[in-house]
Amino acid sequence: MHLRSKPWAADWLLEHHDIVIDQDRAVKQRGDWQALFDEPQPIHIEIGSGKGQFILGMALAHPEINYIGMEIQETAVAIAARKSFDSVGKLPNLKFIYGNGAGVENYFEKEEVSKLYLNFSDPWPKTRHEARRLTYKTFLKGYEAILPEKGELEFKTDNRHLFEYSLVSFIDYGMRWTTSDFSLDLHADEDKVVGNVETEYEQKFMAKGQPIYWIKAHF
Amino acid sequence: MHLRSKPWAADWLLEHHDIVIDQDRAVKQRGDWQALFDEPQPIHIEIGSGKGQFILGMALAHPEINYIGMEIQETAVAIAARKSFDSVGKLPNLKFIYGNGAGVENYFEKEEVSKLYLNFSDPWPKTRHEARRLTYKTFLKGYEAILPEKGELEFKTDNRHLFEYSLVSFIDYGMRWTTSDFSLDLHADEDKVVGNVETEYEQKFMAKGQPIYWIKAHF
Repeated sequence: MHLRSKPWAADWLLEHHDIVIDQDRAVKQRGDWQALFDEPQPIHIEIGSGKGQFILGMALAHPEINYIGMEIQETAVAIAARKSFDSVGKLPNLKFIYGNGAGVENYFEKEEVSKLYLNFSDPWPKTRHEARRLTYKTFLKGYEAILPEKGELEFKTDNRHLFEYSLVSFIDYGMRWTTSDFSLDLHADEDKVVGNVETEYEQKFMAKGQPIYWIKAHF
Repeated sequence: MHLRSKPWAADWLLEHHDIVIDQDRAVKQRGDWQALFDEPQPIHIEIGSGKGQFILGMALAHPEINYIGMEIQETAVAIAARKSFDSVGKLPNLKFIYGNGAGVENYFEKEEVSKLYLNFSDPWPKTRHEARRLTYKTFLKGYEAILPEKGELEFKTDNRHLFEYSLVSFIDYGMRWTTSDFSLDLHADEDKVVGNVETEYEQKFMAKGQPIYWIKAHF
């Protein structure tokens, strides 16, 4: 996803630095994220939260969880945070990081994050860009570094090649999952799709009749 | 697949015991399968060869390999063997076993088989029938017992749930594969479908536009 830049984005982010934390502040917040939320609760993060429909939906559905959406594109994170702010005000359990998913271990200490989501990540189809895929081993290492033992990574995508690649990457890294945490057509599985919060991309691809691949793997 | 029994099947099998080996003879042949073929060549087997289109196509395409189709249904193995016999005569590199895939280690000794195929196996969808699925761990143990180190199992199916189940079963058993040996839509992958021999089921499901799942995993 590449969005045209919005002239209001930079100013909006400055004015709402209590909702959107930039990279420098995120590094200083390491080990102390609970201080930014109203309640000390498990923290779940989404890497690449895009325009924010998923993380906002999750924050509304699960007030017992503190959510952080992480996004490297300024325009996207500004759209996501503003959309959430304008529609429901300042949520007590939702923050954003305007920053790079490659450095999660610089933002969070071990076990500070209870669960991690990847949704419709950029497929980076060229082999020479393999290391940029969010399921490449160096990213997995970063995720493992902030999650508890056997911590969960939940991932969904419409992109078949990225999903094939990711399964192999997970296995090679030593990650595991069960049949009930895995679907090659999520929306055809009534029992697995319960509680699923749809992303913008997901709705678009579902409308085209394409399967959504889904997995909840643990380290 | 369940076929109506054919009155000619039992007699045909008796008359062609040089092509179709029954279970008792298969046990005695253990360690000596090369003696049944014209040339001592690597042996590849298909468990559940059904009406035989795949194994016959492979035998014709690869004269440098000795093929054995294994099938538990008398009618199916008779149809497969007769079809191959009537169309191309007695092939020097194709045999059938009329027998049960659960006992492969009784028919073959370690490393006697170089590669193993499963195609469109019965999904046995009920959980209580898990142990009958040809990718259940006890079957994998049998396959491992007759293959060489890092021996290959190639599997394709249209059945999503069986494929999801099988991937998890393979991983839990310690099997591995690479991205290039794996496809969630085989016929959409030009580079992976090269040399693919289609089964009867495969053609039927392709005609309906359903994806064929494919994997070549090794122990």
